[in-house]
Parts: sequence; structure tokens; C-alpha cells
Amino acid sequence: VSDRLREDQRALFHGTALGTVVTLGPDGGPHSAPMWIDEDDGDILLNTAAGRVKDRNIAQDPRVVVTVLDPADPYRWVSVEGDVVERTEEGALAHIQALCRRYQDDEWAAVADQVRIIYRIRPRRVYGQDG
Amino acid sequence: VSDRLREDQRALFHGTALGTVVTLGPDGGPHSAPMWIDEDDGDILLNTAAGRVKDRNIAQDPRVVVTVLDPADPYRWVSVEGDVVERTEEGALAHIQALCRRYQDDEWAAVADQVRIIYRIRPRRVYGQDG
Repeated sequence: VSDRLREDQRALFHGTALGTVVTLGPDGGPHSAPMWIDEDDGDILLNTAAGRVKDRNIAQDPRVVVTVLDPADPYRWVSVEGDVVERTEEGALAHIQALCRRYQDDEWAAVADQVRIIYRIRPRRVYGQDG
Repeated sequence: VSDRLREDQRALFHGTALGTVVTLGPDGGPHSAPMWIDEDDGDILLNTAAGRVKDRNIAQDPRVVVTVLDPADPYRWVSVEGDVVERTEEGALAHIQALCRRYQDDEWAAVADQVRIIYRIRPRRVYGQDG
């Protein structure tokens, strides 16, 4: 257990593996779903649309966990627990476009009236297994 | 969103994909880690060792979520939210042996003084994406 990602763990956030992202609902119960994931300067970045379940959950409780498995060896994995320290629209469209190219080698199909959001998650606790 | 798994979703719990299992810690924060997963009669089964983080968490709060991605198409996934309705040692060693054969095609290496536990999770809410 550490409070930051190692280099080899950071690389898992720059590949094409989805991360399983956990937020907490209004009753404190966990909500879990896969997402595209990214990393910047040791923080985890997530990109979602304003108003979604995740967005509503994080507004109430900033605690998030992201778990990612190495597709080449799923017994190599990392979980990052942390808090959302920033929620911004700035650069969020360009960011989802870049994620779409990375994950699907395709252009992002913009959705009318959809506002994209970037969440920045600062790790508090990092744990996992090295395979 | 449903309160039970469909047949095609149940199959994901009988393959070799790990599930990401979320429990809630003493402070209500989420803990998330991959595990071997199983299914019986619509319930999710998990097998862990007594006294681990998951075991302590579940003793305090029975709410669990398990998310599993189809290895052949990770955009096909399912999340099962539910409560632990049973915690038993009965059959738990035979169960982890069977999981070891299924996941690793290998014999389970027994650990001295380790007590295995089966958790039975009754789905309350099932959601996901069909790929």
C-alpha cells in the first residue's frame, strides 16, 4: 500500500484496458462500472457527461476507487482510492476525443447538448498485485 | 436495470474472467479488488479467507458490487449490486479447489490455518452494457 502510483502502474492508465470505477450513491451504497481511464502527473483522470449517475454521486461524496487489470495478465492489477479534487469542463471535449482515438482508434462522435466533464482524482491509497 | 441476471450474463460468472469486487470500509469508503467469481441459482458466490479486509468489511456492511467484463469484448459487461445473505465455511474448501481448476487449470495449494469462506450475494440491482 502506497499513496502514489509507480511508473509501471501508471502505464496501465495509458493503454486500452478499461478501469472499473466505483462511486458512492445517495444511500452510501457502491456503484461500479467500467470507463475509459487516463493519468496525469500521478492523478487519475476520468471523463464523463454532466448529470450522469457518477456525476451526481461524486457531487455528494468525492471518494472514488478505480481498479485496472493488465489485459496481458489480469493477476497483475492496481486499485487507486482517492478523492475528486477537480471537476472541470475545460479541455474535456478534446480529452474525450483523445481517449476515443486511444481506445477505439476512431473519432469521437459528438452528442448534441452533452457537456463533458473531466474529473481529477488524487490518490490517497494505492494497492494491488504484481502478477 | 433488473433485479436478476439473464442467462447470457450468468455465463460471465462461469468463465475465467476475474470480477472486480467492491466492499465498504469502516469509514464507508469503497474497497475494490479482483477476485475469482461464481454463480449459483441466480446468486453470486465469492470465496475468501476469514479475517481478510473483505471479510471484515462485509461483517460491518453486507452491501457488495461485482463488475465483470467479457474478456472477448470488454464493452460487454455487467454489474451486480446486492447483499451478502449467507457466509459459510461449509463446502468452502471444495469450492476454492473447483475455482482454482476452472481459473488456473491447477490444484489449489492449501494454506495452513487458513479458513475459507463462501459468500452468497443476492442481486438487488443488475445493470450493464451488451457490447
